[in-house]
Amino acid sequence: MRFIDKLNAAIDNNNSLVCVGLDPVLEKLPDKFKSAEKPFLKFNKFIVDSTHDLVCAYKPNSAFYEALGADGIIQLKETCDYIKENYSEIPVILDAKRGDIGSTNNGYIAFAFDYLGSDAITLQPYMGQESLQPFLDRSDKGCIILCQTSNEGAGEFQSLEAGGKKLYEIVAKAVSEKWNKNRNCLLVIGATYPEALKSIRQIVGDEMTFLVPGIGAQDGDLEATLKAGLSSDGKGLIINSSRGIIYSENPRQSATDLKNQIHSYR
Amino acid sequence: MRFIDKLNAAIDNNNSLVCVGLDPVLEKLPDKFKSAEKPFLKFNKFIVDSTHDLVCAYKPNSAFYEALGADGIIQLKETCDYIKENYSEIPVILDAKRGDIGSTNNGYIAFAFDYLGSDAITLQPYMGQESLQPFLDRSDKGCIILCQTSNEGAGEFQSLEAGGKKLYEIVAKAVSEKWNKNRNCLLVIGATYPEALKSIRQIVGDEMTFLVPGIGAQDGDLEATLKAGLSSDGKGLIINSSRGIIYSENPRQSATDLKNQIHSYR
Repeated sequence: MRFIDKLNAAIDNNNSLVCVGLDPVLEKLPDKFKSAEKPFLKFNKFIVDSTHDLVCAYKPNSAFYEALGADGIIQLKETCDYIKENYSEIPVILDAKRGDIGSTNNGYIAFAFDYLGSDAITLQPYMGQESLQPFLDRSDKGCIILCQTSNEGAGEFQSLEAGGKKLYEIVAKAVSEKWNKNRNCLLVIGATYPEALKSIRQIVGDEMTFLVPGIGAQDGDLEATLKAGLSSDGKGLIINSSRGIIYSENPRQSATDLKNQIHSYR
Repeated sequence: MRFIDKLNAAIDNNNSLVCVGLDPVLEKLPDKFKSAEKPFLKFNKFIVDSTHDLVCAYKPNSAFYEALGADGIIQLKETCDYIKENYSEIPVILDAKRGDIGSTNNGYIAFAFDYLGSDAITLQPYMGQESLQPFLDRSDKGCIILCQTSNEGAGEFQSLEAGGKKLYEIVAKAVSEKWNKNRNCLLVIGATYPEALKSIRQIVGDEMTFLVPGIGAQDGDLEATLKAGLSSDGKGLIINSSRGIIYSENPRQSATDLKNQIHSYR
């Protein structure tokens, strides 16, 4: 099954655009998880069990697991396995922001898709389409390209203008018109830049889906994001929240609240 | 000790600008390594033992290890440990091409510097200085920023012109003038683009060191690279070769040949 079809089915089944970022940090975990043998895995199971009927995707960020070395990678894999075994209808997005020359990318592909079994991966555009072709050739998997990122200093290069267009607009146009032959490309656009989101939606049209970080801890504007980015079928956006859900007192309630808040604007 | 000092000491001690890329792929290993319990580690030990007096750095690319999951990460760590224990004067560059929002980068920092103990890491510029600040703050470690990459399609975005300057020139100028407050920044510039290298050397001046991939399998021009990129003290370049050395019949001879070939142009 193609990533986008799996994603849209999960959006429909759970009536939700919420993606939960599985980004564990040892010091921030509730005490009962801290002392577990595999604290990240145990914590993730709790989050996933609490939210699986409220979300359209899970997004573990590789950095949090790599921080623990091989032991963290094992917990990342077992988290992915747990989701596949128990909630196989929910896609897993590996947030890894990878990108290297073509032949080297085969290593990252083996990690993300063969070893972890994730359904999609986030990718860096800087080296161009030719370098990412091994990812783009995987028509079953989602290639989610950084376009307008959510961080405060994103504009340093992304907002440079070349030929009257900003770099993030040029990236969006290239991905939409050239990279997306297998209809497996998505874009990352931060909720902290709703004007950019609006402009990118105009450039790429109604069909492409955006992964939107920046809601919650990063203070992105949810209403403006949805108004600017929803496609005509009320989809086209994956709204990610990590810290705002997983470290809240009641993650199920926080996921429900975000789902309902999104719903009020759809 | 700062990365750049450790690097320059190794360049002087071994009179070499050669960096060997430790990029193992199971199918390409000689048979005697394929059947080992930890084939990548055993192969890397052989390469390092054969070349340690001929090089200025080793550069394992994370992708090749991640391909094996947690087991590959263990072999990567044990490779780094082996170099530190036996050849502590040779710096290790983790080629990982990472980059995320600031707080998330702490995970990659823990992986690269605390867990693996590497001396430097390659980084993606797309998200800007503000995102990479946690790396830049590590004044003891090298931050090697992608600028003009070696791949054929590198120019798709890197050669875009904004305000009369190409993107790779803008990145080089920003890194040189703003990001490099701790004097710990380097740039990645492919040997496949000697004209870009020349222009970047003019922009950043004599002091900054470049990591140069693209010699060997990628067919970069060694003579043009050295003429365009050497700093006035005959350093300023790290010439990487991976496949051309590690998969040659005699890696020691191939490293010697590259060292001597470089020497003839210095």
